[in-house]
Amino acid sequence: MSRVFNFSAGPAALPLEVLQQAAAEMTDWHGSGMSVMEMSHRGPEFMAIHDAALRDLRELLAVPENYKILFLQGGGLGENAIVPMNLVGRVSQPATIDIVLTGSWTRKSAKEAEKYCKVNIAATAEASKFTTIPPRADWKLTPGAAYVHICTNETIDGIEYHFAPDVGDVPLVADMSSHILARPVDVARYGAIFGGAQKNIGPAGLTVVIVREDLLGHALPICPSAFDWKVVAENNSMYNTPPTYAIYIAGLVFQWLKRQGGVAEMEKRNIAKAAMLYDYLDSTGFYQNRVDREHRSRMNVPFYLKDETLNTAFLAGAKEHGLLQLKGHKSVGGMRASLYNAMPIEGVQALVAYLKEFEASH
Amino acid sequence: MSRVFNFSAGPAALPLEVLQQAAAEMTDWHGSGMSVMEMSHRGPEFMAIHDAALRDLRELLAVPENYKILFLQGGGLGENAIVPMNLVGRVSQPATIDIVLTGSWTRKSAKEAEKYCKVNIAATAEASKFTTIPPRADWKLTPGAAYVHICTNETIDGIEYHFAPDVGDVPLVADMSSHILARPVDVARYGAIFGGAQKNIGPAGLTVVIVREDLLGHALPICPSAFDWKVVAENNSMYNTPPTYAIYIAGLVFQWLKRQGGVAEMEKRNIAKAAMLYDYLDSTGFYQNRVDREHRSRMNVPFYLKDETLNTAFLAGAKEHGLLQLKGHKSVGGMRASLYNAMPIEGVQALVAYLKEFEASH
Repeated sequence: MSRVFNFSAGPAALPLEVLQQAAAEMTDWHGSGMSVMEMSHRGPEFMAIHDAALRDLRELLAVPENYKILFLQGGGLGENAIVPMNLVGRVSQPATIDIVLTGSWTRKSAKEAEKYCKVNIAATAEASKFTTIPPRADWKLTPGAAYVHICTNETIDGIEYHFAPDVGDVPLVADMSSHILARPVDVARYGAIFGGAQKNIGPAGLTVVIVREDLLGHALPICPSAFDWKVVAENNSMYNTPPTYAIYIAGLVFQWLKRQGGVAEMEKRNIAKAAMLYDYLDSTGFYQNRVDREHRSRMNVPFYLKDETLNTAFLAGAKEHGLLQLKGHKSVGGMRASLYNAMPIEGVQALVAYLKEFEASH
Repeated sequence: MSRVFNFSAGPAALPLEVLQQAAAEMTDWHGSGMSVMEMSHRGPEFMAIHDAALRDLRELLAVPENYKILFLQGGGLGENAIVPMNLVGRVSQPATIDIVLTGSWTRKSAKEAEKYCKVNIAATAEASKFTTIPPRADWKLTPGAAYVHICTNETIDGIEYHFAPDVGDVPLVADMSSHILARPVDVARYGAIFGGAQKNIGPAGLTVVIVREDLLGHALPICPSAFDWKVVAENNSMYNTPPTYAIYIAGLVFQWLKRQGGVAEMEKRNIAKAAMLYDYLDSTGFYQNRVDREHRSRMNVPFYLKDETLNTAFLAGAKEHGLLQLKGHKSVGGMRASLYNAMPIEGVQALVAYLKEFEASH
């Protein structure tokens, strides 16, 4: 098969240029005689790759100087424990954190955080079956909380924050796994931002953390050193051997993003791609997206066929058209099209054409 | 430059065949139209890759049926915390564990474990500057210990266990990061075996744990779910998104090992490679390896030039001969040649020829 349009929610499509460069450099990176996979993480070749990736990411997101960028392992689910282990020690114990429930990811984050602190559900959209974001005015925040946790793009439920909520002096922590680098972000509004790489950055196995320096140094005594943000920061993400090849691929993605025009250009394209798909879904009763329009995700578009007995036929036909990984998450069913940066507008055009064709023939 | 002989201690050389296959499959794995990096970890394509890797590793090491094989993240330093978080809950609290200090890695493991339990140094080779393994008869083990921790190959110090110590009914936990798959191992002698992949298995960012089933289910309440071995085992290493590409490369290495004749054949080659290098080092006063002969590592051969003012010239000349990453770890200085499975005998021949040449000209 030639290359397909891959709508996976993650691990997800990568730019073809990046994959081609990685293939070309696989056995001999820049005349070094080695694959990037074979390089000591402390050697000059890999250090150059690592530093360039850090520098490009800082430039792409305009990360202020008083923020550290860390490359870690363990993904978003790992961070669900690592974040409280690093931050609840900031306040007197027992600490409380505030979480706003907007979908599957924040629910998991809340459950995991309970191992380390008291968790206050400041607001929840559960009654709506996670199709909205509770209005900021309704959030019941805890005075003196260690931090406020939100997930700015719920991958499974297809909800995205199109605003940065004001939570006063308490640090705002955002799980941005599935929309980081898809739009500009005012990093200074957040105490910490984290994300697994496998959606919009690169291969699974790399986790990015962006954290304000004054929040370092409060890890609980039981926090593993390899996940103590201060230890990681002091060692330039080299306390333990980092996932070197994943960092290299992420670095190639960052270079690709810069060539495309950066995150401002990505945002334009992502708005256009998402609008094309939502507009079609809204124009017909055959398909349905259930999320409040103002909170719909540009990245992950869950949708349902009105007649769900057609699901299997829909997916089989999609595959024949080279439209892959459209099945929705098992916890919510239906379909889901993820439109990350690496998905070209042509992929969305092909999907909409197929949606029309399938509707016409059923 | 064409391909070099890469003596890095890790991340380290990989078989050229594996890298070539990975490059060829980079943009379209087996006609799927996707890179392995782009595949959902829950899709049939990646599940097949994952299951084959697990099956091949089980076959290569003859892992008994009552052991689980887990693919994790965080490396050996991560496991230094993850092992006690999973195992000290087996016994009444406060728990004690026994550690035998044989070098830099066990020293780090002991320090990290102190976060979770009392650590008894059952024996230490520190007085010898880590050039030996304390005789088993001298180990002062703790009755009722949660487990006994050893590192069966000390990467920095060049010490290897060529025996499996009998520690009675207490589970023996072995950090095998730097010699796993280099020789047959009687897995049943161990309660748990762990290793970072980046030496003898594949890319950095993947950690392998082999654990006896009855040791699962004792994690401390503060153990992150993503690192709770029982949770990971119950989810077939898919509780969080696994490092999919690293697992794929590891799987290719496992297939390569099977084609070569498995770990028994690797052991033969590794014995021959190590003997060739040690024999030469022992034959001259110009170079020196300081480790007791019976405990010398087949994988990592640290050595010193008698005249250390020649170190820079030695390394520069080695590089000119295509012999790379021979500099010793910063904590011990000198040189180190790592001879993992992917290092062919021709690499050792070239190294010995260079050692002779450098000696003759200085």
